[in-house]
Amino acid sequence: MNTNWTMHEDRLFPADPGTRGIARRLYAEVKDLPIVSPHGHTDPRWYAEDVRFPDPAVLFLIPDHYVFRMLHSQGVPLEALGVPRVDGGRTEADPRAIWRLFAENYHLLRGTPSRMWLEHVFLHVFGIEERLEAANAESFYDRLAARLSLPEFRCRALYERYNIEVIATTDSPLDSLEHHKAVLDSGWKGRVVPTFRPDPCVDPDFEGFAANVASLGQLTGEDAGSWKGYLRALAARREFFKSLGATATDHGHPSAATADLDASECERLFHKALRGTATPAEAELFRAQMLTEMVRMSLDDGLVIQIHPGSFRNHSLDIHTRFGRDKGADIPSRTDFVHALKPMLDRFGHERGLTVILFTLDESAYSRELAPLAGVYPVLRLGPAWWFHDSPEGMMRYRRMVTETAGFYNTVGFNDDTRAFLSIPARHDVARRVDCSFLADMVATHRLDEDEAVLLARELAYSLAKKAYRL
Amino acid sequence: MNTNWTMHEDRLFPADPGTRGIARRLYAEVKDLPIVSPHGHTDPRWYAEDVRFPDPAVLFLIPDHYVFRMLHSQGVPLEALGVPRVDGGRTEADPRAIWRLFAENYHLLRGTPSRMWLEHVFLHVFGIEERLEAANAESFYDRLAARLSLPEFRCRALYERYNIEVIATTDSPLDSLEHHKAVLDSGWKGRVVPTFRPDPCVDPDFEGFAANVASLGQLTGEDAGSWKGYLRALAARREFFKSLGATATDHGHPSAATADLDASECERLFHKALRGTATPAEAELFRAQMLTEMVRMSLDDGLVIQIHPGSFRNHSLDIHTRFGRDKGADIPSRTDFVHALKPMLDRFGHERGLTVILFTLDESAYSRELAPLAGVYPVLRLGPAWWFHDSPEGMMRYRRMVTETAGFYNTVGFNDDTRAFLSIPARHDVARRVDCSFLADMVATHRLDEDEAVLLARELAYSLAKKAYRL
Amino acid sequence: MNTNWTMHEDRLFPADPGTRGIARRLYAEVKDLPIVSPHGHTDPRWYAEDVRFPDPAVLFLIPDHYVFRMLHSQGVPLEALGVPRVDGGRTEADPRAIWRLFAENYHLLRGTPSRMWLEHVFLHVFGIEERLEAANAESFYDRLAARLSLPEFRCRALYERYNIEVIATTDSPLDSLEHHKAVLDSGWKGRVVPTFRPDPCVDPDFEGFAANVASLGQLTGEDAGSWKGYLRALAARREFFKSLGATATDHGHPSAATADLDASECERLFHKALRGTATPAEAELFRAQMLTEMVRMSLDDGLVIQIHPGSFRNHSLDIHTRFGRDKGADIPSRTDFVHALKPMLDRFGHERGLTVILFTLDESAYSRELAPLAGVYPVLRLGPAWWFHDSPEGMMRYRRMVTETAGFYNTVGFNDDTRAFLSIPARHDVARRVDCSFLADMVATHRLDEDEAVLLARELAYSLAKKAYRL
Repeated sequence: MNTNWTMHEDRLFPADPGTRGIARRLYAEVKDLPIVSPHGHTDPRWYAEDVRFPDPAVLFLIPDHYVFRMLHSQGVPLEALGVPRVDGGRTEADPRAIWRLFAENYHLLRGTPSRMWLEHVFLHVFGIEERLEAANAESFYDRLAARLSLPEFRCRALYERYNIEVIATTDSPLDSLEHHKAVLDSGWKGRVVPTFRPDPCVDPDFEGFAANVASLGQLTGEDAGSWKGYLRALAARREFFKSLGATATDHGHPSAATADLDASECERLFHKALRGTATPAEAELFRAQMLTEMVRMSLDDGLVIQIHPGSFRNHSLDIHTRFGRDKGADIPSRTDFVHALKPMLDRFGHERGLTVILFTLDESAYSRELAPLAGVYPVLRLGPAWWFHDSPEGMMRYRRMVTETAGFYNTVGFNDDTRAFLSIPARHDVARRVDCSFLADMVATHRLDEDEAVLLARELAYSLAKKAYRL
Repeated sequence: MNTNWTMHEDRLFPADPGTRGIARRLYAEVKDLPIVSPHGHTDPRWYAEDVRFPDPAVLFLIPDHYVFRMLHSQGVPLEALGVPRVDGGRTEADPRAIWRLFAENYHLLRGTPSRMWLEHVFLHVFGIEERLEAANAESFYDRLAARLSLPEFRCRALYERYNIEVIATTDSPLDSLEHHKAVLDSGWKGRVVPTFRPDPCVDPDFEGFAANVASLGQLTGEDAGSWKGYLRALAARREFFKSLGATATDHGHPSAATADLDASECERLFHKALRGTATPAEAELFRAQMLTEMVRMSLDDGLVIQIHPGSFRNHSLDIHTRFGRDKGADIPSRTDFVHALKPMLDRFGHERGLTVILFTLDESAYSRELAPLAGVYPVLRLGPAWWFHDSPEGMMRYRRMVTETAGFYNTVGFNDDTRAFLSIPARHDVARRVDCSFLADMVATHRLDEDEAVLLARELAYSLAKKAYRL
Repeated sequence: MNTNWTMHEDRLFPADPGTRGIARRLYAEVKDLPIVSPHGHTDPRWYAEDVRFPDPAVLFLIPDHYVFRMLHSQGVPLEALGVPRVDGGRTEADPRAIWRLFAENYHLLRGTPSRMWLEHVFLHVFGIEERLEAANAESFYDRLAARLSLPEFRCRALYERYNIEVIATTDSPLDSLEHHKAVLDSGWKGRVVPTFRPDPCVDPDFEGFAANVASLGQLTGEDAGSWKGYLRALAARREFFKSLGATATDHGHPSAATADLDASECERLFHKALRGTATPAEAELFRAQMLTEMVRMSLDDGLVIQIHPGSFRNHSLDIHTRFGRDKGADIPSRTDFVHALKPMLDRFGHERGLTVILFTLDESAYSRELAPLAGVYPVLRLGPAWWFHDSPEGMMRYRRMVTETAGFYNTVGFNDDTRAFLSIPARHDVARRVDCSFLADMVATHRLDEDEAVLLARELAYSLAKKAYRL
């Protein structure tokens, strides 16, 4: 029996009592600040239609690759977790069966951030004071399902209860943004802004690249088959995104490579990419050039550039073949920034009014490359610990490795990077606790005065994200 | 004077009193668990013959390259430490002189795990309550030597006193395993199992590769000069190892490269390797293919695969020339896993009933590559902090960097990886203390409940190794 | 208001009260030890002429690229900070205006070592018990300026007050060393020794390489246009440096590459380098060969070799073009040591009486490459955490990552690496506090006895540097 189970109010604070006391005081200053979520992957339709979220399995498990990946890694077939197959073949359809399987394997999440996020939601959003286990799987499911049917669990009600001030989605350049429009037109006070993620139209290796470029031309009335028309079309879509509230772009290239080629070379690469005859090196060079082009366009339209490099996408042939893209099998790889970014920085590194936010999955770059680069170039800022590192230990390593060289003000606070809407406050809460713990340690070891730590805690939890993303 | 010197019972536990209290409670649950030693380098003859261990110098210094390397790095000639020369030239032969030299330089080991292991043995196995120094070198030697002559210091008595449940050795595929047989035949209850380490027969750069392959053919009656016969011969030796208790193979390649070539290309590479005409790139490709072949054979015979890549073997030309292989001059180098393992994982990454355990000497791969890979592929598990990292700080970094992504259950507990039989409990004790400290910190910061930490402490100390290695 | 502001006497000590108590005791043993500064960049003229330091802006800001880089990274133009332009164009000339701008942006340094160094100087050297902010910028400036005009703030008085025992400068091989001579001739008891930094004459990519080599010939009377004469000229300059007290050389190559080529190949590369026709690969190979040549010369003259590889110099095109070299825009990059050093180590790795000190900007090499190499080769020692890592967190990571493999005695204590003379005690104080904290943690967790920690604290603060640099 584990009733009356709860999460400790001091969780994630340093164990030393003196330092913990400081962390508590700092956290009290930030825990109720509004949530600014400048980079995420929730579905804009949810806000437009004020959806009621579906059953617990569909809500918590099937779309959360942090969770089903861990179970899969220990031998649970993805089919048994209800992950849809590419070929439409049979997968488990009973949400209760999926939930039971999850509860039986819940121990696999011990020590992971997923576990902490889930428990935060179960306890603080659904009010269930138990730890999930096989024995209470059914009653857990029932209680979750019952609450999900209540009006206060609809999307807009949760947005308000969560004290979200603004949330960004991530969208294809070909997206109609109809849901963002619908939110704007609805008169609802929530702020849901799109983010321009042009990978489908700027990465020659993206599925359907040529067709995507053709669609881009149709959408904008530009001759997207010519290099100049293509650039105009992209600029037009950026303007369209901006007209619906976008303040940023996002780029998920395999590397951080940038280039600064002359127009004829660009033209040549573009046509090879369109014809599908670009070599891997040419495709990489084209992506590199397009990063620089995106930065150049930001000089005109003011969109903030986010670069998320270094993920080997869809590493598992088996998962990719049977379940498709984006099923938790993306693996980080070594990432160079120092040489990769130089062409872009040579051209734009000292521009006024330009912001380029760098993320990494290669922690060895934090202190060696990223903090030094952000510590010198005015256009650069460092995004928070991302993806495999958006965890208590990962976020602490990030602060410990970047602060002394880049300071606090070359970082951009926290973003949740999630499609798991229900867990957004849980994720921000973890980040706020970790940052307060880091600051508390600096105060306890007399590297920072406590009045400064209070100011910084508020910057890290709220202000820096608003400022960096121009929200 | 330093009599009544002892090791503190709270050593390696966190300094914070509250966290230390939790660590103590967890450690109390695991300190007396049997030792499972699934990967080591002790000599099977010792168990077969129930040897009396020789003098202290030969026992503690000459075979322990952690120790003599450190003295050498500060200018002590290897000859003076009695390390045998390749040319049979004169080296120090008086064990007392060697021991005195060691005692005079004992301060060089401050802060190293070797120091902690040695002291554990001196204190807990030999009962000497002093810290070694030049002044007590002689009396130390006398006491060690006196005890070594007692029956309770023979190999089997120590095995039993140490509460070892099973220990694996590492053996050439050409080994007769006569000592393992002798142990089995003797009726002694100790369990000493071989490990299939085929490097001499699968690495074209190994000394005597072609002759080793020829021996393989003779031992098995297969035509080892043909690709298919060679594979059958290896499979036969694996079966032979298995018949004497082996549950695992081990592979010490320079990189983690794997390949999945067609049979004709394999045949071609194999013959170039046999003739000694393989280029370095071809030798690497052959090793890569052989890793995949080894994994394939495991589908049939169920042996667990261990991959230990990334060591630049025999880096020092001087030491290699004058003292031969394996004299402490192996140096880690950068190691890629993400691209290297893909060919093997594409073919076998999602197989049932297959286990591949990955080790690294490149810590930057823990959070960037290894934890993400183990967190998605069912066949992969992560070996513990290895060699240059099997130390308190190294093991703590390992847990901090892999747990949040791979969880606890994609790791395989601890192994001691040593030929220093006397220090085996010392090494497991350090690992248990470090793991309990890590868990205690998670409990103290409310990332884990204490009842779960108790379960996990037992898994990390005992059960996970048994399960992963099928012991 | 922030009067009576001070720095806490326990700053940088661990927060846990028990561990802090140990750290305090250790620090008490070392805080008053003389300063040995074996590697730095102060101007020898200051000591020769016993200069009065100029106004606060010129002293603290304009030459300190740690400081102006951070302000620049947040959008403050370098011109506004008074950094001189290559074209002689207008920059801010009013030191008070520069100081005010600095004070207004002082919060940007929160969490950085620069902040801690500056405050140590303001408080302990100038006696100002306030935290700098916009409101007190003017009065701060006045007090600094007033004290700077006093005799006790002249260079030699500060050297004595700072309890400096010896300080090394870094000098071009073409330098006349007139100031070092003047100090020697003056009868002043201070010890200011040069360091032989031959980059201008051994790096084909250095500005004016051929002219520098020609000057080398003129200075020494050797035929520096021939390979052998060039080597003789370098050896002669090393002897000249040694005659004025030098005990070490220093080498700032892009990589740690070494080579061991035959004389004809050296000759060929040398002439291509002189003619400016060396390819980038040939220039790299020439530098690699010259590192080996420098080590070879050390066999004769006993100079200690320092290798500082891995900096991508003058990364920012804009800053390099407008403000010239060495303006804070050097960025670390990935650095290999295992393969790079092998040619040199094959030849000289086990020599008696030779010392090669390795530094890195790539922290991932600490535990993977550097500690293992220093733990085996007698000629190798590890320099302290350097440049982007000479900070509390950086120095702690260094100790945590190298000690268990390389021990303490393969490290060389601390050096300040600075041109900011006033901050030298502040920097040594930070290092002493961090090392005492590291040792205190080892004592608190019973990995080291406290009597040993006392000895080690003194070694790390004082003796190891003297011994390694032969001072």
